[in-house]
Amino acid sequence: MNYPSKTLERLVSAISSLPGIGRKTALRLALHLVQDKNDKASVLGNVLTSLKEDVKFCKHCHALADDVECSICLTSSRKNGMLCVVENIRDLMAIEDTASFHGRYHILGGLISPIDGIGPSDLQIDSLISRIDEDKIEELIMAISPTIEGETTSFYISKKLADKDIRITTIARGVSFGGELEYADELTLGRSISARVPYKMGV
Amino acid sequence: MNYPSKTLERLVSAISSLPGIGRKTALRLALHLVQDKNDKASVLGNVLTSLKEDVKFCKHCHALADDVECSICLTSSRKNGMLCVVENIRDLMAIEDTASFHGRYHILGGLISPIDGIGPSDLQIDSLISRIDEDKIEELIMAISPTIEGETTSFYISKKLADKDIRITTIARGVSFGGELEYADELTLGRSISARVPYKMGV
Repeated sequence: MNYPSKTLERLVSAISSLPGIGRKTALRLALHLVQDKNDKASVLGNVLTSLKEDVKFCKHCHALADDVECSICLTSSRKNGMLCVVENIRDLMAIEDTASFHGRYHILGGLISPIDGIGPSDLQIDSLISRIDEDKIEELIMAISPTIEGETTSFYISKKLADKDIRITTIARGVSFGGELEYADELTLGRSISARVPYKMGV
Repeated sequence: MNYPSKTLERLVSAISSLPGIGRKTALRLALHLVQDKNDKASVLGNVLTSLKEDVKFCKHCHALADDVECSICLTSSRKNGMLCVVENIRDLMAIEDTASFHGRYHILGGLISPIDGIGPSDLQIDSLISRIDEDKIEELIMAISPTIEGETTSFYISKKLADKDIRITTIARGVSFGGELEYADELTLGRSISARVPYKMGV
């Protein structure tokens, strides 16, 4: 592509280095930023230039934080003794948005995946185990995607904790609310029958 | 959405203020920028913070430029006397990518559109007319989209230039190369028959 301006070219390359953004989209965004009257460019630019200094990782749960502790770990009204183990911050935010969980979190920072060269030592598993004693955790909720990597990670953690006196649970799997039975995959449908639960009105 | 960090929230709002980027995509990009090891955030941040000072508009053709003149207007090897009129810089770049045009450009900065309140005075039409005399233009190529607004703008410009001794041409319309006749719209197909051209081998 021929650019009439070097600055535009630099901006397009910087934007198109982001995942899922090609050169056409990057050009559209770059031209919007150049021609924008509200000066979005400087607003975004200022956040980005100080990003590395401003963003920290929480020392307890490893979520993004503005200081050494994240806002969830700082909230005293949250239930202690209950820890929800998630793969990443997006999963944490998805669970937070449901407003169904009031305990605390632990972010692994990935899943065990030998094919990608990610082993247990690359994840926050040691800090999880030491946290269980320190924070007197009674229940560990595994909120990990039901993929091969997810199941491997859940299994590894449960093995590591076999000698500890804690309850390990996992989020319920089954047919989605609003989902039609005929479109559910066989594995999910099959497991939802074998793992059936007593019927309760309105649940 | 609940954000564990205020910086993340600020970053997500800044990114999602861009056109076509929702909060989910913005969050994905923000988390990528935070966790990226190559420090894309500062690279992009530096380009953005100095964008307003770095980007200028060419005094001749009104394209984006690094200085008072854009790189195309500065190129002495380009043909003088031939001006390609385009709506915006994206159209200019699309034509440049074809490497079929070696003259100079003029960017209107939009099209006449009464419904959006855009009249001829909002566009670079006066500067186009004065340029025709100054630069001794012999041919004006209208490379404007064949929409109602585009046709109106082309018609307005051609009327304005009726007393001048220049050739006004427009880019050829017709069935696309590789396009199937049965899928071409009726107007295009109809006009491509009435505006048929002598057959030449290999063209």
